[in-house]
Amino acid sequence: MEAIKEASQIPGVTTPPSLFAANLDVEFVITFRYANAGADAQTGDSTTPEEQLEKLLHTLDLAGLRTVVRDGGNGILMVFTRIRSENKLFGEVYRSRVRDWLHGIRPAAPETETQRSLEKEPLTDGERLRLVYSLITLPNSEGGAGITPKQGEWSLVESIFALHDRDFNKKWLKDWSTKWMIGPADLKIMRDRFGEKIAFYFAFIQWYFVSLAVPAAIGLFAYLFLPAYSMVFAICNCLWSVIFVEYWKRQEIDLAVQWGVRHCSTVQRKRAEFQFETEATDPVTGEKLRYFPAYKRLTRQLIQVPFALFAATCLAIIIAGVFSIEIFLVEVYNGPLKVILKFLPSVLLSISIPIVSTVLTDFATRLTQFENYENQDSYEAALTQKIFVLNFITGYFPLFLTAFVYVPFGEVLVPYLDILNVTVQHFGHDEKYTTSDTGFQIDPSRLKAQMIYLVVTAQVVDFVVETIVPQVKRMVFRKAKEFGNRRKGLNTEAVMDPPEEKEFLDRVRYEADLEVYDVTVDLREMCMQFGYLTLFSPIWPITALSFMVNNLVEIRGDAAKICMEMQRPIPNRSDSIGPWLHNLSFLTWLGSISSAALVYIFSSAEEGAPPKDLTLYGLLFSVMLSEHVYFGARFFVSYALSKVQSVGLETERKEKFMVRKRYIEESFGMENELIQQEDEKTGGEYTGVGVVPDKGGRPLKGGDLSEKFWRSQGGWRDGVNTGVQIMDIVRGKSKKTQ
Amino acid sequence: MEAIKEASQIPGVTTPPSLFAANLDVEFVITFRYANAGADAQTGDSTTPEEQLEKLLHTLDLAGLRTVVRDGGNGILMVFTRIRSENKLFGEVYRSRVRDWLHGIRPAAPETETQRSLEKEPLTDGERLRLVYSLITLPNSEGGAGITPKQGEWSLVESIFALHDRDFNKKWLKDWSTKWMIGPADLKIMRDRFGEKIAFYFAFIQWYFVSLAVPAAIGLFAYLFLPAYSMVFAICNCLWSVIFVEYWKRQEIDLAVQWGVRHCSTVQRKRAEFQFETEATDPVTGEKLRYFPAYKRLTRQLIQVPFALFAATCLAIIIAGVFSIEIFLVEVYNGPLKVILKFLPSVLLSISIPIVSTVLTDFATRLTQFENYENQDSYEAALTQKIFVLNFITGYFPLFLTAFVYVPFGEVLVPYLDILNVTVQHFGHDEKYTTSDTGFQIDPSRLKAQMIYLVVTAQVVDFVVETIVPQVKRMVFRKAKEFGNRRKGLNTEAVMDPPEEKEFLDRVRYEADLEVYDVTVDLREMCMQFGYLTLFSPIWPITALSFMVNNLVEIRGDAAKICMEMQRPIPNRSDSIGPWLHNLSFLTWLGSISSAALVYIFSSAEEGAPPKDLTLYGLLFSVMLSEHVYFGARFFVSYALSKVQSVGLETERKEKFMVRKRYIEESFGMENELIQQEDEKTGGEYTGVGVVPDKGGRPLKGGDLSEKFWRSQGGWRDGVNTGVQIMDIVRGKSKKTQ
Repeated sequence: MEAIKEASQIPGVTTPPSLFAANLDVEFVITFRYANAGADAQTGDSTTPEEQLEKLLHTLDLAGLRTVVRDGGNGILMVFTRIRSENKLFGEVYRSRVRDWLHGIRPAAPETETQRSLEKEPLTDGERLRLVYSLITLPNSEGGAGITPKQGEWSLVESIFALHDRDFNKKWLKDWSTKWMIGPADLKIMRDRFGEKIAFYFAFIQWYFVSLAVPAAIGLFAYLFLPAYSMVFAICNCLWSVIFVEYWKRQEIDLAVQWGVRHCSTVQRKRAEFQFETEATDPVTGEKLRYFPAYKRLTRQLIQVPFALFAATCLAIIIAGVFSIEIFLVEVYNGPLKVILKFLPSVLLSISIPIVSTVLTDFATRLTQFENYENQDSYEAALTQKIFVLNFITGYFPLFLTAFVYVPFGEVLVPYLDILNVTVQHFGHDEKYTTSDTGFQIDPSRLKAQMIYLVVTAQVVDFVVETIVPQVKRMVFRKAKEFGNRRKGLNTEAVMDPPEEKEFLDRVRYEADLEVYDVTVDLREMCMQFGYLTLFSPIWPITALSFMVNNLVEIRGDAAKICMEMQRPIPNRSDSIGPWLHNLSFLTWLGSISSAALVYIFSSAEEGAPPKDLTLYGLLFSVMLSEHVYFGARFFVSYALSKVQSVGLETERKEKFMVRKRYIEESFGMENELIQQEDEKTGGEYTGVGVVPDKGGRPLKGGDLSEKFWRSQGGWRDGVNTGVQIMDIVRGKSKKTQ
Repeated sequence: MEAIKEASQIPGVTTPPSLFAANLDVEFVITFRYANAGADAQTGDSTTPEEQLEKLLHTLDLAGLRTVVRDGGNGILMVFTRIRSENKLFGEVYRSRVRDWLHGIRPAAPETETQRSLEKEPLTDGERLRLVYSLITLPNSEGGAGITPKQGEWSLVESIFALHDRDFNKKWLKDWSTKWMIGPADLKIMRDRFGEKIAFYFAFIQWYFVSLAVPAAIGLFAYLFLPAYSMVFAICNCLWSVIFVEYWKRQEIDLAVQWGVRHCSTVQRKRAEFQFETEATDPVTGEKLRYFPAYKRLTRQLIQVPFALFAATCLAIIIAGVFSIEIFLVEVYNGPLKVILKFLPSVLLSISIPIVSTVLTDFATRLTQFENYENQDSYEAALTQKIFVLNFITGYFPLFLTAFVYVPFGEVLVPYLDILNVTVQHFGHDEKYTTSDTGFQIDPSRLKAQMIYLVVTAQVVDFVVETIVPQVKRMVFRKAKEFGNRRKGLNTEAVMDPPEEKEFLDRVRYEADLEVYDVTVDLREMCMQFGYLTLFSPIWPITALSFMVNNLVEIRGDAAKICMEMQRPIPNRSDSIGPWLHNLSFLTWLGSISSAALVYIFSSAEEGAPPKDLTLYGLLFSVMLSEHVYFGARFFVSYALSKVQSVGLETERKEKFMVRKRYIEESFGMENELIQQEDEKTGGEYTGVGVVPDKGGRPLKGGDLSEKFWRSQGGWRDGVNTGVQIMDIVRGKSKKTQ
């Protein structure tokens, strides 16, 4: 631990931390795929690999980066880069900090002298990598080299990635695996290495993990002592979810201030893929503006609605279909092969859902690209929203189906499943194979069983899949590539590495094959998990407890995944968990509805029996009541939290105050000077009687009358005398004056 | 019109506009009441009037103001003030602009040279008065004289007010009374004179007036061609209200940017009445901090809940009671004096509601004071919220009662009113005086009649009352004061004005007696009107049309009121209509519920007959559906509007960009200098082969291996060559290298 702290606190650049040393001072590796160049007709780029390589190295050189080229195997070249000189780096750091100040991300401008500025705020690994990365990828207009992998003129550039710091990773994983709580100091280290975006995910999951203690405790109590579908538990659970989300919003602000990234989402990263319709130069700013009409994008966004409906229908039909088959097989069918056929639905679902999901996700991505966003953030937010809708359906629809269709309406609907039976009969089977429709009874334990499956089994399976699949995938891909290259007659083994670099280059080649870490995938997972908790935990109150156990492992597993199975992430900045925050709020809202409905429908029933005596207005009324209580609670919680002092906002306020104070003092100085000038003209402070008041003072525009009026009382003492006289006269103590 | 434009566009301070001329260059008049000083024991201040007057004039003098004292009649002195010198004023202007810049209200810092800064942005009357006012009233710690009327050491200071500019007012009223539309130029003139807060009210009412054209047209169509309680009309009306509110939010931003007041609400005005519990000096900022614990305020705020319930119950009982009496008298009672007794309820209501309202408003004010807000804005917002609740009940409860209690349940409930009858019988009357309960039928036209009364008659009555009552009140108060003074033996007629000032001083005395204009009263009126429209307009679709006519007069009436019946308002800044915006949103939401319920209950009924076949789940379902459609629509409208370019935000963005550009150019300059220094050391751009790359460049920390690695390729051309060789080898074109 101490070692890690030390490494991350070494004061800045003049003695850069050792982590780059182990990587031969390499900052980024750019992989350049020359092998498929000829075959790759889709780019429409007629340059040869040699020309593009030359252009790449020249561009990097112009941007101030040094390069070394090595063989990457499998038909790629690896271009190792590092920034040419310290001064270049300092300049970038300074400019970036000034830009932050101008965008309101920093409260105070950086010290004008670079060296001092860096000593005061040393450069972290994260900041350095971020700056060099933006130097490579930003468009030329914003001072970067404009290299965008696989886009346009850079069709052969495959990826840009940083190298892992193995020593740090090892220490880090060991540290985290031996302690229970991830504290602010740990998050700070994460942030310094991997950037704020990833650090925010870990801060979130840690806060979520800690917060889960409350519903876990309540849930355990409810499980042991309260009746099933207890209203008390549902209310507590809802209330907790509201407080959790609202408090997280506060924490986000505090963290953002502490990490100096608040408002950084206002600085938009332009998307390279953005297609503009008209280009114009702004007459005021001289800035090149690329317009894409807002109404057009809005029209395109409207396609989301039919898409969401279509996707929902697709997935719902599949799920409901499989569900029907399952009910039929388990509860109606009684014919041959029942033992084997029982597994048919699970197999069907496991095959069909991932395929359909992949197709739909792909379509969602295309749709989002078609929506043509100007900025990376809006693009990501729009894609996230669509993915969330898909996940929402695949994740929650089965439970909704069981809870709100199968159980209440099962006795009415299931007999219709005999249509399957009729079909079966059609093929010559006879009626004895089905339980007759007179005897059918719904199975109320199905809901709980399904919930436990989704909450426990599915989580474990997911975790395993997440850990193993990428490795298998990587191996397969590698073999496939090697095979492909051999087939193309490429002599991939021919290039020899310099022997002393062999180990290093092998490591880099290994890392080049790793996948790119996408933090939104992990955030989505947590968000979905939170959804089970808010929407369905009355079904199985110890849901929260099981999630707590799961997340204890999950945090560490994710850390290990980043270190070992993924390329080192580019340290992006962020001041929030982004669009997921809205989704969390949305889930708390839906939770208020779903919990009320669950409690209303099921709490009246005996355990193990279908519910009785339900009325539609009773259901509507409980849902409405719950929803409005939820709105009230959310309003109250967010109001109350807004009144409690926030550490982050307080810090920000103070920093702003200091800036203000300094400036106001300066402007005060100026004003005093002005008054002094005036005093020199009028001869000191004006108090005496009879002195002509307006010489050098404010000119009177009201003419003679005005002059006479203002001269009638020479100074403030004169005024007091007049006033006292008037008072005396009115009170009858003396006779009139003036 | 031309004349007004000219007056407001005279470039600034060096030649101040003529309006102050007619007022003898007086900026503010401070009234000082010496007559009641002895009797006024509640202040606990033992200073004599003479001492306090001396202190007042001395303080003003120190703050840089000139003063002249004149008799105000009726036991008050009038202290005329103006700023001592132009330089003092310039200093204030400059400091205020710098402060604005630091708070993010201005995008760019003002020109450092004051004179140039003022030439570029001339001082408006509004800005001048605002600055001088803050010079008089701000606490000493913030650079003002700290004079707070009627508070603490200034117990005898009664009011601080500016003098009307009669010429401008005359031209302004004439101009507005002869044209239909109030345009942006007119609002700009308003803003320059009366400040942004009042200008925002006029901008709002004008936008509201124009927008009303839509529901007025739809309403007229519905009135003529659609059945009563048409769902189509209700939906259109709701949708319009959503768009209206969301679009206004946008307009607020545009106006705030245009007027240079955006974010000005973040600059908090401290409340003089704030009671702190602990005082500490901030270790970082050195600022004096006065704490009042947030949890304590939150606890105090919770008193609002019982208060609101109590107030609602009080008002509801009165209204429901009177309502019952009315129903009884009109529809059940048939005895003697019916003709006269029929008016009893109206009389009861007209007397009781204002009295109870006044008591409750007074209590709400005390409660808000007790909540002990630190800033003026939070205080006003909290008070506004309470007043809104009271107004909500008195304004809308009668209609809710008729629509949702009397009509649906009337036949069940009204017979119980016979309890009154029983009471009457008790006093010896006999049964023939009541229609027997068998024959009772509710009167469904009552709802529409009540709506028309509230929407037309009440608006007209309010307008007349608003115009006449203050004048009567003023006369009565003046007489009462004169009588009181005479009774105390004050010789108010004894002081003689200088003859040439007589006319002027009489005018000032007249204005001193006028009331202070409170823009929130007018905003409240509009907000309540908007409420009738969103909540109840299905009852009488041409409501919007009648409001349009009313508001055409209202705008001009309010302008006249400000000019003639009120003291000249202090030009306060504001970047919004403040808490009323939330209330408007709230009303649109409630409108979605109320409209759905109205349409569900009444649309099935024949005109003039009570509704039949209503079910509770039908009602709940329509309300829920409507509410959720409303949420969806609001989300969509606000999203769509956020994507349409806003003029204001665009302007702000451009201004910020210009500032950024200038600064970045400066920092670029610095960076280029650094690189030049470096280039001098390394001997120009590094491209050659064999030159030791790291002399003066970035030092390598990876040791020998690293150095060898980076030296292995001298410059970027070397890299290209290596790359091409590797490609050739792999493709089998040549033999291996390295």
